[in-house]
Amino acid sequence: MFFSSLKSKFISVTLVAAVTLGCALPVRATHPNLVITQSDVELMREAVGTEGRFAQAYQTLKNTVDQQIALPITVPVPKDGGGGYTHERHKKNYQLMFNAGMVYQLSQDDKYADFVKDMLLVYADLYPTLPLHPERRVNSQNPGKFFWQSLNEAVWLVYTIQAYDLVINALSEEEQNVIETQLLKPVATFLSSGQPSTFNKVHNHGTWATAGVGMAGYVLDEPEWVEIALYDLEKSGKGGFIRQLDELFSPQGYYNEGPYYQRYALFPFVTFAKAIENNEPERGIFEHRDGVLLKAIDTTIQLSYNGLFFPINDAIKTKGIDTIELVHGVTIAYGLTKDTGFLDIAEQQNQIILSGDGLRVANALDAGKATPYTFDSVAFGDGKDGDEGALVVMRSQVAGDQAVLFKPAAQGLGHGHFDKLTWQFYDNGSEIISDYGAARFLNVEAKYGGRYLPENNTYAKQTVSHNTVVVDETSHFDARVSVGNANAPTLNFFESSGHGVVSSGEISTAYEGVTLERTLALVNLPEMERTITLDLFEVTSDDEHQYDLPLHYQGHLIDSNFQLSANTDQLPALGEDNGYQHLWLRATGTPESGLARVTWLSDNGRFYSQTSLVDGDESFLFTQIGANDPNFNLRNENGFVRRVSGKKTHRFVSLLEPHGEYNPSKEYTLEATSSLESLSVTDQGSVTVVHVTLASNEYLVAINHASEVSEQTQISFQNKTYLLNGHLGVFQLNNH
Amino acid sequence: MFFSSLKSKFISVTLVAAVTLGCALPVRATHPNLVITQSDVELMREAVGTEGRFAQAYQTLKNTVDQQIALPITVPVPKDGGGGYTHERHKKNYQLMFNAGMVYQLSQDDKYADFVKDMLLVYADLYPTLPLHPERRVNSQNPGKFFWQSLNEAVWLVYTIQAYDLVINALSEEEQNVIETQLLKPVATFLSSGQPSTFNKVHNHGTWATAGVGMAGYVLDEPEWVEIALYDLEKSGKGGFIRQLDELFSPQGYYNEGPYYQRYALFPFVTFAKAIENNEPERGIFEHRDGVLLKAIDTTIQLSYNGLFFPINDAIKTKGIDTIELVHGVTIAYGLTKDTGFLDIAEQQNQIILSGDGLRVANALDAGKATPYTFDSVAFGDGKDGDEGALVVMRSQVAGDQAVLFKPAAQGLGHGHFDKLTWQFYDNGSEIISDYGAARFLNVEAKYGGRYLPENNTYAKQTVSHNTVVVDETSHFDARVSVGNANAPTLNFFESSGHGVVSSGEISTAYEGVTLERTLALVNLPEMERTITLDLFEVTSDDEHQYDLPLHYQGHLIDSNFQLSANTDQLPALGEDNGYQHLWLRATGTPESGLARVTWLSDNGRFYSQTSLVDGDESFLFTQIGANDPNFNLRNENGFVRRVSGKKTHRFVSLLEPHGEYNPSKEYTLEATSSLESLSVTDQGSVTVVHVTLASNEYLVAINHASEVSEQTQISFQNKTYLLNGHLGVFQLNNH
Repeated sequence: MFFSSLKSKFISVTLVAAVTLGCALPVRATHPNLVITQSDVELMREAVGTEGRFAQAYQTLKNTVDQQIALPITVPVPKDGGGGYTHERHKKNYQLMFNAGMVYQLSQDDKYADFVKDMLLVYADLYPTLPLHPERRVNSQNPGKFFWQSLNEAVWLVYTIQAYDLVINALSEEEQNVIETQLLKPVATFLSSGQPSTFNKVHNHGTWATAGVGMAGYVLDEPEWVEIALYDLEKSGKGGFIRQLDELFSPQGYYNEGPYYQRYALFPFVTFAKAIENNEPERGIFEHRDGVLLKAIDTTIQLSYNGLFFPINDAIKTKGIDTIELVHGVTIAYGLTKDTGFLDIAEQQNQIILSGDGLRVANALDAGKATPYTFDSVAFGDGKDGDEGALVVMRSQVAGDQAVLFKPAAQGLGHGHFDKLTWQFYDNGSEIISDYGAARFLNVEAKYGGRYLPENNTYAKQTVSHNTVVVDETSHFDARVSVGNANAPTLNFFESSGHGVVSSGEISTAYEGVTLERTLALVNLPEMERTITLDLFEVTSDDEHQYDLPLHYQGHLIDSNFQLSANTDQLPALGEDNGYQHLWLRATGTPESGLARVTWLSDNGRFYSQTSLVDGDESFLFTQIGANDPNFNLRNENGFVRRVSGKKTHRFVSLLEPHGEYNPSKEYTLEATSSLESLSVTDQGSVTVVHVTLASNEYLVAINHASEVSEQTQISFQNKTYLLNGHLGVFQLNNH
Repeated sequence: MFFSSLKSKFISVTLVAAVTLGCALPVRATHPNLVITQSDVELMREAVGTEGRFAQAYQTLKNTVDQQIALPITVPVPKDGGGGYTHERHKKNYQLMFNAGMVYQLSQDDKYADFVKDMLLVYADLYPTLPLHPERRVNSQNPGKFFWQSLNEAVWLVYTIQAYDLVINALSEEEQNVIETQLLKPVATFLSSGQPSTFNKVHNHGTWATAGVGMAGYVLDEPEWVEIALYDLEKSGKGGFIRQLDELFSPQGYYNEGPYYQRYALFPFVTFAKAIENNEPERGIFEHRDGVLLKAIDTTIQLSYNGLFFPINDAIKTKGIDTIELVHGVTIAYGLTKDTGFLDIAEQQNQIILSGDGLRVANALDAGKATPYTFDSVAFGDGKDGDEGALVVMRSQVAGDQAVLFKPAAQGLGHGHFDKLTWQFYDNGSEIISDYGAARFLNVEAKYGGRYLPENNTYAKQTVSHNTVVVDETSHFDARVSVGNANAPTLNFFESSGHGVVSSGEISTAYEGVTLERTLALVNLPEMERTITLDLFEVTSDDEHQYDLPLHYQGHLIDSNFQLSANTDQLPALGEDNGYQHLWLRATGTPESGLARVTWLSDNGRFYSQTSLVDGDESFLFTQIGANDPNFNLRNENGFVRRVSGKKTHRFVSLLEPHGEYNPSKEYTLEATSSLESLSVTDQGSVTVVHVTLASNEYLVAINHASEVSEQTQISFQNKTYLLNGHLGVFQLNNH
């Protein structure tokens, strides 16, 4: 059914072209019609002649293109692998063809179309001569010809088919014929029927391939290609773009490799979807699965703090909402929804896309229509059905901009880290309790060719490099990805209210015979203009184990309220394997029963105290990253590991408190010491009652762990009764 | 002579007051007349009623004062030392009296004057009962009564006498009498004739004392006090404010403790000078010594990079041009000169002083009159006659904003570091080759009471913590301040031209029998839009020694072009004493003869390569700060030490090259490797000829070390002749 309707549309379009233009060549008058349509182009041409963001963006691009097309066309015979010269040159070429095509459409100056044509003709000469790429992996299922892997080849096609669509009207029939038959069609065929396993795969690589082939289908009048792109080579629906949309995102639009890869994966999705929308709006692609693509764009934004993505899994920590993929995403999202909150993000991105939606964004920004984008507390269900745990974001504005990221989420495939139930804390614009992210210097040849460093496996992915429990110095799932992928944690509950945000998750498959259960609460204390974060981590087993709970902090250690024994003239490594070999042991302390406090100072000028409630059985091991790192690949960051040994069960209890200000420039220091005076924890049925005294304010924080909390729960404290609604209650005690 | 002219002025003023005001009390109509005059006040009163920066600043201050005067007056009996409660309370009180007095003048609301009066009366009751402060040092020459040391007492008087001057017209004769006889006069007497050694001392402490007493002289009709403040207790001119002006600054306005203390020292100077100017313009205080005070203000600004002071000697590195003392300085400098470059600095300071000059600054900023302030390359002569070496600032704008700080400067008293001929490098807004500054967490009680940490002596002051030669692992002058103060380096030459900036200095007293001579050149290569920095460090002795040249860099090590042997599972300290005990030895390498390159990546996203020309005799020891630091007091920064042993003479030759860009957010990396292909150094008479090949550009850099370079010098290279003008020549060779 789809097929026939498509076919008729293509035919009618061709007829209209022939009639209205009446030029010598049988050009397809609706070009361009992928992400950008002919009617977009008319508005865009007008806009470049006026003042404003859009015209500026055009001028900037035009200047760049002018410089580049003044140079000779270079299409080298493929030779180098990722990062090498020919690899990078071919990447530059597709970007340049796309940009020059765009400038052609907006300037209507033939020299830009000629440039694209000339380069395409060189490629058309070259392609038929090419064998598989010499740097392909042995027995690779997905080699390329221009590139060592077909992923890059698919990206090449996504850009190049758009470039061709932009200039096609300026080419002779013969030129079109050469380019289509010698280059574009063979590439599309190579990437589809030539590589069924990749093309049909429900995976990001498949998305690029289907996007490229499907868009080529629209441009080259091959509606069948659109069908196979959407429903796989057999049109079975077991693979293809629609299946990818159904499986690669959770119902809330979360992509389970995490935001760093989500923004990357997003690009072929939104590009191809926009092309589908423009060509076949009747498919309702943006409404598919309750609008999951728009949700995916929005979720990518939500998974950021102060402009940067939460760096879970393999993530370069400087990546944030201004990445080009998300600029495209936000542009398309605004075009579809006209939600002015997206303009706030677009303003921060400070890049205008040259497209119809880009023009709408630029005009709206010029008109000052942006309204603040709202960052929420959300538990993003993980897995295609949203039931494989969740990635939890907890936010508060009571004491500045704060966020807790809690990760009872699924493994996230090969880029996932072994960090079930880990957390991070952000305050005042800065990372306070941190995740190492990926060990990688992207594209820096001297650092392992710019690829993931060996230390990404030996340290960054290991459990001890995160803020979660390590049992017996081995990583979750024994660091086996396949086991991790098969076993997600459970989200026990998530609740956000005026009292704050609370969430709990657990997993009993990370270690055989050990259950890990963590509850985190970001608690608002508005009368003190403060928050505290409570962390209750319960480890249960029938056997005795060593339990380590690391905390990686950003800042300079100020002091602890217990004695430390420091290694001063020889520094040993903390352990031998599973990431422990990369930690220097700087000092050890075993606080007596009571409150064990560690205070550090962040570069943001605020102090942070983490106070643990201990029984005399926890040792604190102060660490610095950098052991067994002969090539200086790791950042030398600080942390401490709380350790208990020979235990069947243990509850790690702690409270994190931001306080004070260090201002050496203005020469004042305020509240450099924690105001926590006492802390106690008791259990009343399913409710954990935490009694907290902070300076002159005393609170009960009650957390109900029951799965059903439909009725009020009664708790008692010092002969008084308190009524708890939901999972989290905060009661200010009046005896102060 | 001064005395009689003063006397007559005071008398005439009093007469005018009696005649023109004709009110009941014999008020002194010219109050206020210290930093702020009666005519200033009239203009300021007008300004607070209009819109603009001045009115905003007033409103902000008034809100603060309103909150504070709503609280009870608290004047505790002195008990605590520096940082303790009574100490901090008395500091707050003088600031509050001054601020309330200011709001009184501008609002003309009596409640503010009443508040100041009430507090002064409490002080007047308390003062006669006070013994010397219980926390004073044993046998102290300068105890206080409100404070443990009289320095704070003098600061108290500087603020309090101004507060009194602001409210005096609102007080009854009796109130004036009580406050003057029981409080202000006794304090002034205590600080002058009561402590001759401090009052007469040509030292910053003396400046505060003379400023307080002198200003009290103007307010309390004690012209004799002005005389002794200016010329010492005996009016001999051997001490006093004028002598301090003559000796504490070099002719160019450099204060030899360095900019961190210069901005602090500046405050009583400019405050008292402004009061002198307002009361006795005929003294021409701002013209004194060719305008040295204005030069001192300007020099403080010049000694900054990207808003922060060069952190030589004991310096907190976050201190910069927005410190309140320099805000006062810039305000007064603009008032005197109307130089609109000062407005550029004032705009960055973003604080308006409530004074006549502050109003002039605010109005000029409101009118958009600021013009860019020019940062120059300057050799600031050190010592009172400017002949005790120099602090050299070298700047370039050829490749962004770059600065080299070179320090052939004098010791700088007790806060000076043992770092003769050290250097620092700044680029692109960031510190690249760094100085540790002071080891101190200002006012953080947990860190050694907020005072200088023990590690300030054991590490931060020691030579190895700087970027200069250490002989036999001992510090310059064997770390004896008195020896350092007696022996300054020599500035051999300094020259700034289109080719760049070059400077050379030497010292033969830092170590017995060893001469250290260093030449640094920041060389412009405009055709490459680059600079390079050449560093030639010549060490000469008749005896064999070990010579170490450390380089402390900010960033992440990328690689070296020679093999490193790393300490991977045990980290030893580099040495046992003189700062070496605080360095971990992470790796060692001994490059073969030729170019030894080390590359690191700065947080600013640029790469830096330091390439040394070696003979196979230099070892490179890669270090990290943090050994023997049981309290986690030190920052864990990185560096490497070049070492030769058993040598009489050695020339350390190196070239620093900023290059490329690391942009993981936009996913590109440019020029991550050094473009230096070859480097050679030859000597032709007094000229050192450096042949540099950088990618496709080849240069000769010639440095003439002769003290006289009045004539052109001929040098030859590869059978061609080049003519060198001055000390620095750069010749682009054409054979590429």
